[in-house]
Amino acid sequence: MVVFSGSMARSGHRGCCYALHLREDNARFILLFVVLGIYMITGAVVFMILEQDNEVLEKQVYLDRLDTFLRAYPSINRTDFDEILQIHAEADSAGFAGTKRPRWDFPGSFYFVGTVVSTIGFGMTTPRTVAGKIVLIFYGFFGCAGTILFFNLFLERIITFLAYILRSIHERELKRKGLANGSNDSRRGSQVSDDDRLDTWKPSVYWVMLILFLGAVIVACCASAMYHPVEDWTYFEAIYFCFVTFATIGFGDYVVSQKESYPNVHLYRFGNFIFIVIGCCCIYSLFNVASIVIKQLLNWIIKKLNCRCRRRKKSKGRRNAITPGHIHRGSKMNKSKAVTVECDSDSDGRRNSDEMISMRDFLQANKISLAMMQKQLWETSQRGMNSSNGSGFQGPVGPLAILNRKLGQEEV
Amino acid sequence: MVVFSGSMARSGHRGCCYALHLREDNARFILLFVVLGIYMITGAVVFMILEQDNEVLEKQVYLDRLDTFLRAYPSINRTDFDEILQIHAEADSAGFAGTKRPRWDFPGSFYFVGTVVSTIGFGMTTPRTVAGKIVLIFYGFFGCAGTILFFNLFLERIITFLAYILRSIHERELKRKGLANGSNDSRRGSQVSDDDRLDTWKPSVYWVMLILFLGAVIVACCASAMYHPVEDWTYFEAIYFCFVTFATIGFGDYVVSQKESYPNVHLYRFGNFIFIVIGCCCIYSLFNVASIVIKQLLNWIIKKLNCRCRRRKKSKGRRNAITPGHIHRGSKMNKSKAVTVECDSDSDGRRNSDEMISMRDFLQANKISLAMMQKQLWETSQRGMNSSNGSGFQGPVGPLAILNRKLGQEEV
Repeated sequence: MVVFSGSMARSGHRGCCYALHLREDNARFILLFVVLGIYMITGAVVFMILEQDNEVLEKQVYLDRLDTFLRAYPSINRTDFDEILQIHAEADSAGFAGTKRPRWDFPGSFYFVGTVVSTIGFGMTTPRTVAGKIVLIFYGFFGCAGTILFFNLFLERIITFLAYILRSIHERELKRKGLANGSNDSRRGSQVSDDDRLDTWKPSVYWVMLILFLGAVIVACCASAMYHPVEDWTYFEAIYFCFVTFATIGFGDYVVSQKESYPNVHLYRFGNFIFIVIGCCCIYSLFNVASIVIKQLLNWIIKKLNCRCRRRKKSKGRRNAITPGHIHRGSKMNKSKAVTVECDSDSDGRRNSDEMISMRDFLQANKISLAMMQKQLWETSQRGMNSSNGSGFQGPVGPLAILNRKLGQEEV
Repeated sequence: MVVFSGSMARSGHRGCCYALHLREDNARFILLFVVLGIYMITGAVVFMILEQDNEVLEKQVYLDRLDTFLRAYPSINRTDFDEILQIHAEADSAGFAGTKRPRWDFPGSFYFVGTVVSTIGFGMTTPRTVAGKIVLIFYGFFGCAGTILFFNLFLERIITFLAYILRSIHERELKRKGLANGSNDSRRGSQVSDDDRLDTWKPSVYWVMLILFLGAVIVACCASAMYHPVEDWTYFEAIYFCFVTFATIGFGDYVVSQKESYPNVHLYRFGNFIFIVIGCCCIYSLFNVASIVIKQLLNWIIKKLNCRCRRRKKSKGRRNAITPGHIHRGSKMNKSKAVTVECDSDSDGRRNSDEMISMRDFLQANKISLAMMQKQLWETSQRGMNSSNGSGFQGPVGPLAILNRKLGQEEV
């Protein structure tokens, strides 16, 4: 009954809602595209400045060395020499040259497969036969899909765990406060108020991000402590390798476990495997939590842009398309109405003079919006659970949604 | 009121539900870990068989060539020669050697930044200064998080779009059928029945997967048609490059746009950028849809394992921990009860003799489970929308959840 009346009420103003919703989502998508474009252009300029001089320098050193060698051996035919250099370079990147270990023995092949399914793709080993390339495409398809599911399930597990821990800490704090302040209250009354406060309390996305960040840093530091002596890299190089690997970028400029022999090679390979699995899972979770915060930032930008547009063409009476939650400050119940009112009062009222919002304002708004989002999500999932309880498997499963739902309601 | 009574009812048997829920999730996570492990070991063996002979052969050819060169020039000091070969190999992988274009001009730097934020990481260009490496870690962190958000938003958009298209097709079909069959019915009656059927209809996850798959194949074919003549690769090599790039593996054995000059270089770079963006988005979406199907497969395996365990230790009267939806075949309402009953009857009844379930059985069960999940998700989100309507931004956001919710309810 509830479902049907809800669905009918919605279908009554479906056209409007649908259009509004699409507009906001598209706006956010396009805005993110633009922001990422600007971020990439900025990054390109920064890296160009940092690396261009070094490139010229290194190239000059290389050409000098080549020149010195050719002058020492004037009898060498330049064409032959270039050819052998090219052959060597190819062999080196394919892993035959020098004292590297064989690429396609079982451990090497397993390592290669690991870089495929995790999408790290160092490229220290690549299939060179046509058959290998064909198999790779099919193998990689299912492997990558499976690993994405693995990362998502890990994300779900870790968020459940963190929410449980944070809730326990909060619960203990509440009880301590209850004992300190409410010792003259009746025991039962204080219990109820505790439960009430616990029911509305949600773990902060910033706390979860901080914990995951610290976790990722600890894993990277431990892994680097292992790689640094074994691979003869500096500690910083090992940290750089850890970031590039755990983020699944995998340039291949530094690749572990490529020398011909190591002390305790099996132990090292096992440690390497474990560190890469945990590191990738941690960084994946961290990226997903960070992306929630980025999304909040986008919503805030959209809202600001929208308010400015509205002030310019005020005659248009349509409802505000963008309705992020953080503008419902005072009011809890009259949601979609409050947006227009508050948004207008924002642009007409006190903010008229200082259009540039301070960072502190943003953070405050963001905090409130997160709290609102968490409350609403919690309520949504509360209701959802009543209908879907007992059929287990359609719980929160996607990166962001897991976070949203888990942060909103940590015990399902 | 609904929320509170729901929350209280839940907290009444929280211990049980909570434990059951965790147990199923953990079981799935561990099972996936084991399955992926087996998949990787199988893959390692397959690639070892495919590539090992070729490696020995190629290495022999390389050593022969080196030997021939050294015999032609016996005056060369071997240490000097090895040194210059090593220097050249390093210069080649860093991009100074030969007739490649400069790596750190603006287009090169932009290309590099693109491979970082998308986590492709070809490795044709890598930061070689310490400052570059430090900046990369911080830059990559925000860039990767932003790109994950971008991919997730794209996934949300494309699923919304596909669900809309599929619904339109279904709607048109229903109308055509209605005109053919129900021409003697009253017009209003047929309209209501159409709406009813539309309300319960959901797009199939298999259709969405098929469409995304075809989309990815078309993008890859178009991109390959561009790369094949411009880069002097075979068409198959271009396809292989497309898969490795779009899946963000990025080995770096084939990298486009590395020659010194191209005809219409700006147009080519632009096309390259667009193809990589669209390709990565498509394959990311495809992987996420595929991972839903993999998850269903895992649930099915867990259920089978669980049933077998239950039969062995039948005296234990606890409720079934694993409750995938596809076992509610006949019954729609008495959910968690039906699981135990059906599960037991499965193991006691007709399935007792043939424990090996046929693929057809699995597919059928899977289909029903998907339909059930979609229905429940749709109801869940229906209810959820009533409470959260008007505050726009906490809609479906995560890869899997977007799919689940969008496939369950395509118009929010």
